[in-house]
Amino acid sequence: MGLGLVAHLVRLGVLSSTSDHASVVSINLFVALLCACIVLGHLLEENRWVNESITALIIGLCTGVVILLTTKGKSSHILVFSEDLFFIYLLPPIIFNAGFQVKKKQFFRNFMTITLFGAVGTMISFFTISLGAIAIFSRMNIGTLDVGDFLAIGAIFSATDSVCTLQVLNQDETPLLYSLVFGEGVVNDATSVVLFNALQNFDLNKIDVAVVLKFLGNFCYLFLSSTFLGVFAGLLSAYIIKKLYIGRHSTDREVALMMLMAYLSYMLAELLDLSGILTVFFCGIVMSHYTWHNVTESSRVTTKHAFATLSFIAETFLFLYVGMDALDIEKWEFASDSCSPGKSIGISSILLGLVLVGRAAFVFPLSFLSNLTKKTPLEKITWRQQIVIWWAGLMRGAVSIALAYNKFTRSGHTQLHGNAIMITSTITVVLFSTMVFGMMTKPLIRFLLPACSNTVTSEPSSPKSLHSPLLTSMQGSDLETAAANIVRPSSLRMLLSKPTHTVHYYWRKFDDALMRPMFGGRGFVPFSPGSPTEQSTHDGR
Amino acid sequence: MGLGLVAHLVRLGVLSSTSDHASVVSINLFVALLCACIVLGHLLEENRWVNESITALIIGLCTGVVILLTTKGKSSHILVFSEDLFFIYLLPPIIFNAGFQVKKKQFFRNFMTITLFGAVGTMISFFTISLGAIAIFSRMNIGTLDVGDFLAIGAIFSATDSVCTLQVLNQDETPLLYSLVFGEGVVNDATSVVLFNALQNFDLNKIDVAVVLKFLGNFCYLFLSSTFLGVFAGLLSAYIIKKLYIGRHSTDREVALMMLMAYLSYMLAELLDLSGILTVFFCGIVMSHYTWHNVTESSRVTTKHAFATLSFIAETFLFLYVGMDALDIEKWEFASDSCSPGKSIGISSILLGLVLVGRAAFVFPLSFLSNLTKKTPLEKITWRQQIVIWWAGLMRGAVSIALAYNKFTRSGHTQLHGNAIMITSTITVVLFSTMVFGMMTKPLIRFLLPACSNTVTSEPSSPKSLHSPLLTSMQGSDLETAAANIVRPSSLRMLLSKPTHTVHYYWRKFDDALMRPMFGGRGFVPFSPGSPTEQSTHDGR
Repeated sequence: MGLGLVAHLVRLGVLSSTSDHASVVSINLFVALLCACIVLGHLLEENRWVNESITALIIGLCTGVVILLTTKGKSSHILVFSEDLFFIYLLPPIIFNAGFQVKKKQFFRNFMTITLFGAVGTMISFFTISLGAIAIFSRMNIGTLDVGDFLAIGAIFSATDSVCTLQVLNQDETPLLYSLVFGEGVVNDATSVVLFNALQNFDLNKIDVAVVLKFLGNFCYLFLSSTFLGVFAGLLSAYIIKKLYIGRHSTDREVALMMLMAYLSYMLAELLDLSGILTVFFCGIVMSHYTWHNVTESSRVTTKHAFATLSFIAETFLFLYVGMDALDIEKWEFASDSCSPGKSIGISSILLGLVLVGRAAFVFPLSFLSNLTKKTPLEKITWRQQIVIWWAGLMRGAVSIALAYNKFTRSGHTQLHGNAIMITSTITVVLFSTMVFGMMTKPLIRFLLPACSNTVTSEPSSPKSLHSPLLTSMQGSDLETAAANIVRPSSLRMLLSKPTHTVHYYWRKFDDALMRPMFGGRGFVPFSPGSPTEQSTHDGR
Repeated sequence: MGLGLVAHLVRLGVLSSTSDHASVVSINLFVALLCACIVLGHLLEENRWVNESITALIIGLCTGVVILLTTKGKSSHILVFSEDLFFIYLLPPIIFNAGFQVKKKQFFRNFMTITLFGAVGTMISFFTISLGAIAIFSRMNIGTLDVGDFLAIGAIFSATDSVCTLQVLNQDETPLLYSLVFGEGVVNDATSVVLFNALQNFDLNKIDVAVVLKFLGNFCYLFLSSTFLGVFAGLLSAYIIKKLYIGRHSTDREVALMMLMAYLSYMLAELLDLSGILTVFFCGIVMSHYTWHNVTESSRVTTKHAFATLSFIAETFLFLYVGMDALDIEKWEFASDSCSPGKSIGISSILLGLVLVGRAAFVFPLSFLSNLTKKTPLEKITWRQQIVIWWAGLMRGAVSIALAYNKFTRSGHTQLHGNAIMITSTITVVLFSTMVFGMMTKPLIRFLLPACSNTVTSEPSSPKSLHSPLLTSMQGSDLETAAANIVRPSSLRMLLSKPTHTVHYYWRKFDDALMRPMFGGRGFVPFSPGSPTEQSTHDGR
């Protein structure tokens, strides 16, 4: 996959007359680059600075340069960022897989902190960035930006890149930080999108208490209904697969049904103007807790790895895409027409600074609040961990770019100066934060928390010997073992001192008594008449 | 997923103002219908008449009716057949999976017969249908069709529907018939597409020997280079995965690389104007023979089932799509403007008749030829089997529709009478042949070959106990056991009497001595240091 081939393909694609042929060329180019990313990512696996996202981003940038050189700076319009592609095809598998593979024990144990960070924190970050932007940008001469635009900037730059976070933190090495930062990232994505959509619909000229209350009510409604839809879709899939025992005839139908139901939940949420991200995330959690246990063993292995693979391809594609799109010459030219390069760098730096301050403004106070509710020092978030949480959530990614495109290229006023500058600044912030902050996260963790990377890997995890060797690392039993091992409420004092564990205990009772007999789950799988042979005869459909 | 919901969604979709929203609605509709197809297909599994394709087709038709009723016969333009969607996204996973799962022993043992049927047979069918169409249609008054159009009709209706064939015949019950009919279908698809493309480029006014020779040379070139590209892509993937041992860090990368390399081979073939179908089919065969053995055990289970699932979803989607598209009211109205319903039915019946005759014209003579080369009566294709081969290949599917759209709606002359009639006739033939011929194939096989469905299931297959229980039905070792068990050439007489087996024997020697040490394969997997634990720690990336 040398650069020569790429250059040749690009020339073919740009020079080709029919749109049909051009799409074939660009698909070829993308697939070849994806293969290159995978191979390079494998070779650089041991490297402490670079991760897969950064590799993909750099390859994307290089390809962008080659395209620019090949076409002599003229055209790069086969590589324009498409919001639809991002929100309809790339994001759902990534977020679903995150829900499907998340360690449920950690996630639910820190549920309150995660929600606090993700919802309240994003609000704080949003207000900080918006106010800062109003204070600073309104004094600079950068075209016509109104209050709505400044608030949109707040929402755009409050969206943490949960995809990149996944690659920087390791679920096995730093489980607490992973679940906090990643869980926050998911809730944060949802909050940003909800905020952004709410802002689009509100009349911003008359802000009073009623509007703010309506806004909060709207937010809670979206949060709860999105979660409910995801849980419902997950439970429905579990019920159908358990009741009809679909694996009896074909394992492919089970896998297909799980995939399609998850995607349906996302698309339904989008249709009903809910947050598809939250919906598909909770659908993933429910599916891994119930549905996954109802399918045949082959399907379990398949779903686990197939979902991870799809998510992996989507992630790599995304970063490649952002990297290539970053060099789209038209918008840079337009932005440089209207303001000097120095000013453009200034704006990007100010935005980066606001991002840094906006995140600090909620991570440290909210960690302090969260620590107040914890009794034992072990459970508290240490000062060093707080720095890592602050740092690891600084990356801005494709959600920011998608929102920026949505806001600043729509409804005809694409050609305004302020809008072009905002888009190029967003791209600069995304590239800089992903590359620089992303590269420095792993070394920072090693520097601040040297113990983590060595000791925590040997934590006592779920009883592995019970599973087949192929499924050792599956997290399906986390929730149960957590509840079973830790929560034995011998006294009322215990109950009061560990409220989260108590909720776990009652949830477990409810789960065992009502949910699992109905929807399946570990220990409640349907009876399979002579499953291995039964399977093999029907397999080859 | 009641009809009420569907009707509501359709109304939403058709009435919605933005194209964005409409695409969300149609995706929702399609995904919900896919889920319904899967559940219904499961419930109807035991039924002897209906199979999954027919279920999907009928659900598609019903949805089409609901759409027509809901919009009061006005609009159904969110459901127009798109060639790109078909050739770029739906066909590759289906054909790749067919190559990946095909029983290689049977396929290569019958390789000569398959090529004879697929290449020569399709040519015979093409000439029969073309000449028949010229003879009959030129006497009827159906618009302006020239010689090129008649030849295109021949190519369009020579394309067997290999997808539907897969569902009608059972690989375990009738292995010989399956490999013959399906293998023929793949080669036939390729031949039709190649024929069709060759016809588009030739100047049809001056046909002489030189043109025919050039055409044949072109065909051989396409056939060989497509096969070579597929084999090359498969071997490259095997080499990369073996050499770099990608499974060491992440099983997802292996699966992703296999998927992407296979897709890349297809798209490269399309880019180079080769036959993508042939390329990806051979890529699948090579990947299952080499690459599949180089990956970790989890990846093996995953690829086997994930490819099957993707192919299954694509197939179901395809039939749903064809069913919905069939009722697109515009073209029917246009066709009925220009000729009476009776005439339209007449044309479709004539085409169906030509399809029947065209297939009979090569199945029986070529079976006779093929039988001449076989020595033992057991290897010969019996009279009853010939009828089944003839019948099972009568179905026409999405390839025909895609080719018809390509020919008759392009280059501006969409609005000609003859073209509209040809498209509606193609749809009629596809629907009728898939439903009626498809429904009658299973009962026909039971009637003609009652022994097959009982005895052949217990055929001595590959040594299952060597594999893990999850992989019992994988066909990976077919080729080797076939060669090892049967071919022990004790004398020259044996060698001469069984030329196919002799080729197998030498192939096996070559494979063991050169190919497998280089590209991996069964018995040549790379060393994995403590694989189960190694795997589990790196799994959860």
